[in-house]
Amino acid sequence: MKKVLIDCDPGIDDALALALAAGSADSLDLVGVTTVGGNVDLELTTANAVALREFLQMGDVPVTPGSAGALLHRTVRATAVHGDTGLGDVVLPTPERGPSEGHAVDFIIETLKAAPGEITLVAVGPLSNLALAVRREPRVVEWARDLVIMGGSYTRGNHNPAAEFNMLADPEAAAIVFEAGWTVTMLGLDVTLKAMVDGGVLDRMRPLGRLADLLVPAAQFYGVVTAEGGPAIHDACAVAYVLDPTLFTCVPAVVNVETAGQYTRGMTVTDFRVSGREANALVATAVDVPAFWDLVIGAYQKLATRLG
Amino acid sequence: MKKVLIDCDPGIDDALALALAAGSADSLDLVGVTTVGGNVDLELTTANAVALREFLQMGDVPVTPGSAGALLHRTVRATAVHGDTGLGDVVLPTPERGPSEGHAVDFIIETLKAAPGEITLVAVGPLSNLALAVRREPRVVEWARDLVIMGGSYTRGNHNPAAEFNMLADPEAAAIVFEAGWTVTMLGLDVTLKAMVDGGVLDRMRPLGRLADLLVPAAQFYGVVTAEGGPAIHDACAVAYVLDPTLFTCVPAVVNVETAGQYTRGMTVTDFRVSGREANALVATAVDVPAFWDLVIGAYQKLATRLG
Amino acid sequence: MKKVLIDCDPGIDDALALALAAGSADSLDLVGVTTVGGNVDLELTTANAVALREFLQMGDVPVTPGSAGALLHRTVRATAVHGDTGLGDVVLPTPERGPSEGHAVDFIIETLKAAPGEITLVAVGPLSNLALAVRREPRVVEWARDLVIMGGSYTRGNHNPAAEFNMLADPEAAAIVFEAGWTVTMLGLDVTLKAMVDGGVLDRMRPLGRLADLLVPAAQFYGVVTAEGGPAIHDACAVAYVLDPTLFTCVPAVVNVETAGQYTRGMTVTDFRVSGREANALVATAVDVPAFWDLVIGAYQKLATRLG
Amino acid sequence: MKKVLIDCDPGIDDALALALAAGSADSLDLVGVTTVGGNVDLELTTANAVALREFLQMGDVPVTPGSAGALLHRTVRATAVHGDTGLGDVVLPTPERGPSEGHAVDFIIETLKAAPGEITLVAVGPLSNLALAVRREPRVVEWARDLVIMGGSYTRGNHNPAAEFNMLADPEAAAIVFEAGWTVTMLGLDVTLKAMVDGGVLDRMRPLGRLADLLVPAAQFYGVVTAEGGPAIHDACAVAYVLDPTLFTCVPAVVNVETAGQYTRGMTVTDFRVSGREANALVATAVDVPAFWDLVIGAYQKLATRLG
Repeated sequence: MKKVLIDCDPGIDDALALALAAGSADSLDLVGVTTVGGNVDLELTTANAVALREFLQMGDVPVTPGSAGALLHRTVRATAVHGDTGLGDVVLPTPERGPSEGHAVDFIIETLKAAPGEITLVAVGPLSNLALAVRREPRVVEWARDLVIMGGSYTRGNHNPAAEFNMLADPEAAAIVFEAGWTVTMLGLDVTLKAMVDGGVLDRMRPLGRLADLLVPAAQFYGVVTAEGGPAIHDACAVAYVLDPTLFTCVPAVVNVETAGQYTRGMTVTDFRVSGREANALVATAVDVPAFWDLVIGAYQKLATRLG
Repeated sequence: MKKVLIDCDPGIDDALALALAAGSADSLDLVGVTTVGGNVDLELTTANAVALREFLQMGDVPVTPGSAGALLHRTVRATAVHGDTGLGDVVLPTPERGPSEGHAVDFIIETLKAAPGEITLVAVGPLSNLALAVRREPRVVEWARDLVIMGGSYTRGNHNPAAEFNMLADPEAAAIVFEAGWTVTMLGLDVTLKAMVDGGVLDRMRPLGRLADLLVPAAQFYGVVTAEGGPAIHDACAVAYVLDPTLFTCVPAVVNVETAGQYTRGMTVTDFRVSGREANALVATAVDVPAFWDLVIGAYQKLATRLG
Repeated sequence: MKKVLIDCDPGIDDALALALAAGSADSLDLVGVTTVGGNVDLELTTANAVALREFLQMGDVPVTPGSAGALLHRTVRATAVHGDTGLGDVVLPTPERGPSEGHAVDFIIETLKAAPGEITLVAVGPLSNLALAVRREPRVVEWARDLVIMGGSYTRGNHNPAAEFNMLADPEAAAIVFEAGWTVTMLGLDVTLKAMVDGGVLDRMRPLGRLADLLVPAAQFYGVVTAEGGPAIHDACAVAYVLDPTLFTCVPAVVNVETAGQYTRGMTVTDFRVSGREANALVATAVDVPAFWDLVIGAYQKLATRLG
Repeated sequence: MKKVLIDCDPGIDDALALALAAGSADSLDLVGVTTVGGNVDLELTTANAVALREFLQMGDVPVTPGSAGALLHRTVRATAVHGDTGLGDVVLPTPERGPSEGHAVDFIIETLKAAPGEITLVAVGPLSNLALAVRREPRVVEWARDLVIMGGSYTRGNHNPAAEFNMLADPEAAAIVFEAGWTVTMLGLDVTLKAMVDGGVLDRMRPLGRLADLLVPAAQFYGVVTAEGGPAIHDACAVAYVLDPTLFTCVPAVVNVETAGQYTRGMTVTDFRVSGREANALVATAVDVPAFWDLVIGAYQKLATRLG
């Protein structure tokens, strides 16, 4: 059982990532969910996470809200991509329980401290919470078993030509996290845009009962506003990596996050020529797409059986 | 009794500021001291704060360590100005007690939360702790009664032509603090360099018994490495302001902290033409020097009597 | 006879500077005037220079237009300070002759080349022409006898808190000029704002006949839109320096022009601690105000006699 | 006959580009070659251009030297890629004639002015000369029939992860050129790295007599120090585009050159979502590799026949 703490900003693809985690409960021990302002405001990402916890029957995993915005300066949102609520057209039942007391930064620090070397951090939103945790308690870098993020790109961005949304939403936080001393496993647009929800994938989602009520409209909404050829489900890639790292080819690199550029703030400048310097990242460069979908759909099927 | 929490990085002038607070115990209720890496490393600023607490007989005021370095990028130190230990040639007795458990950021948040509207924050080092507190718990902005800092300048810097040391040591933190929504009272080099320890002041310090063993060599060491005409005691200005705001002329302004410049990182760009925009700072532009020294020396005399 | 080439953007104070040169014809040999877009558009600065040449009876000194805007990015103008025409309320007679064929950059290069070591460049507008000349023909740096500019500041700006207008109007050009290898004599706001046209000065201008028709309304217009205590006549300081360098105290310094800052573009970051580095500038730090006005008014009187 | 002016910094691939132009004399009228400091110093790029003119029997086409370095700040060189002389192991006969008097910037301006709408500018080095020409005489933008550059990338750089060498060598110049008002046809690494000199291409070069003495060692030297799978001949792509634009797929885009980033200076940030804004560039996204080599080798064969 791999212990995982997911920091997220649901967000359509965050929802699909949480569903993947929920469907992988036999191999994944989800010790907590923390939320951050990102795709939409913190109030909404937290409300969505709480609603998803009940809809996906994730038990009593704590959901703890964190940072509302970026460390510095202005906040960017992605409501054009995720809709006003953050979940597109999907409407979930009102949950009975709310989020936990406390703050994501404290939750991350205390949870990692209680089980050093055991917990993999999976961050699929802006890195504000992680950056604050690192600065508040630098030992989280040692305590974390691993850090896997969805974010960045070594080729091109999505929010603008240079930057991927999660990195652009808090470039200084991303810089802090990449400079913190651990090795960041980075699943960027370079791979996430290769694993599209095409018609075949959608056909495998449709029969999944109540779960399909989440998956299908989510994918469809996302698809309309983003790419042709079906939407990517970016954040789910990070969870999939934890479940089976062999799905992805990862290459050591030095990643520097640009914070100063006029057109390039939030860009993850990725140098694969790492000789003479120590890599601070493992960057995914390829994904086995059929195997990826087999893993994801397989987990969704298990979950669908449970949900009815 | 004004309740005050001092965030500092002793540091020679921090020591003189703490002595001023200690000598003003009849009008100042010091609820805590937090430390930050700045003039010297956090281990030293904390050790110095703890040693000063005993030497200055400050009772059981908690001393809580915080951030070791800047939010982003490289750390700068001022050992050339403060010596390797941070206190120049001054050697204090080894203290019996150490610092508190816990972290300055948590201490600041919890202390302000427990007495909203009552406590004045006085920050005389890099603003790393305050920035993290603001981002971890944005309500500290409402809870603080006031924020008074020693730092910045609206004319020229000291560490380089553009930037004052405390701001340069963590420009992003400074930017966060100035943008947080409160009014920052800024006592910068513009006034602190006007209140020099000249020969007359030194003559009033010499007869102060054990306290003179701190004050005199501190001022002298500082004087040698900094300015002609005697040294300034920058940080003490912030405490003096709390004791008697009428010592200073303060003017509303918009202060933006430069984080992007090649030669100007950490500069507090101060615009006094605030019509049409809301001031985020009260900037000190003049100081009544004789009255300032009367207040400071008066407090030192009281303290000297106590210390013997 | 000092040979001088004036690069300018009239501009009210440029007009007063040209009048000072015209009134000093017995000691100053004005070999050319070049114009640049700055206070107002190039068409206007050129038209004003041409009109001033005739009004001030400057003979056949060539007036050659140059760069319309900054090397990079956006153009800023100062019409709020100089009025829509660039000369406030002053209306000059329509001149008979127009500007020279050719371009200021070529004129500067060829004129300096023809008399190496003899000509002092006086630049009182944005440094676009000079920067292009330096890059087009690096030997102008050797050929110039001296370079005296009105621009910059080592304390505070005027267009914004950090930058003086001429430097802000083309920061990259200013950086090129300061890095070119010569020693730039910089008369910045630090001194120009000390030599105000107060009531006494104005009283000495009023009796100057036709010349007063230029000087008095120019000073008054300028005064209304800028500072209390009377207006400065910035650009005239540069010409005055050439006429009598002893009017000013100048100190060696390293001046770096900020091109990257968010709030500090165009700032002349001035470091007086030049040991171990070679100064690239002589920065004026003080001016003998009475002597300055004696020199200026004396020249105006001579000119007034000539103009009638 | 297409009239072409080539601005270059030979440089190995510049040499191959000039050879392509020389071999295409029946369809290309080369009206001039201008040189710029880039791959190696200006003295060397000029000497190489002059030597190539004779070796390639390019007649009396004028070779005019221009800018030695970047507009702003430091100069970067690519001697690691092009060898100390700029031509790798190739040694050409000492030429009889030297370069023209005059300066590239003037030559460009005057040549375009004399034949407005007729001449295509081909720039395959840093854009310093073109930027200065644009700023010295803005009408060159109208006078040029077209501007085709080798430089930049919309994916990744070569000199570092973000920037291609020609753009990095003078980012401000590149920004000026892209913002000048014309449409820049940009052949970047995205296509040039697709047209490698593989074994088959090399086999077609070997039998080319004296010309092979240039082509083969040039390609081999370049290949060793750059990529596996054979070297690219970047600059030749720009000439090939002029000869046959149908070899390349080009897409309208807005290209902004980053000048401010810490890790991204010189990056050509390329936005293909141009609706609502006017494209300033046509960016090559694909190349017909076999047809490209047929055109290039065909021209080389014609030239080889001439050279013997």
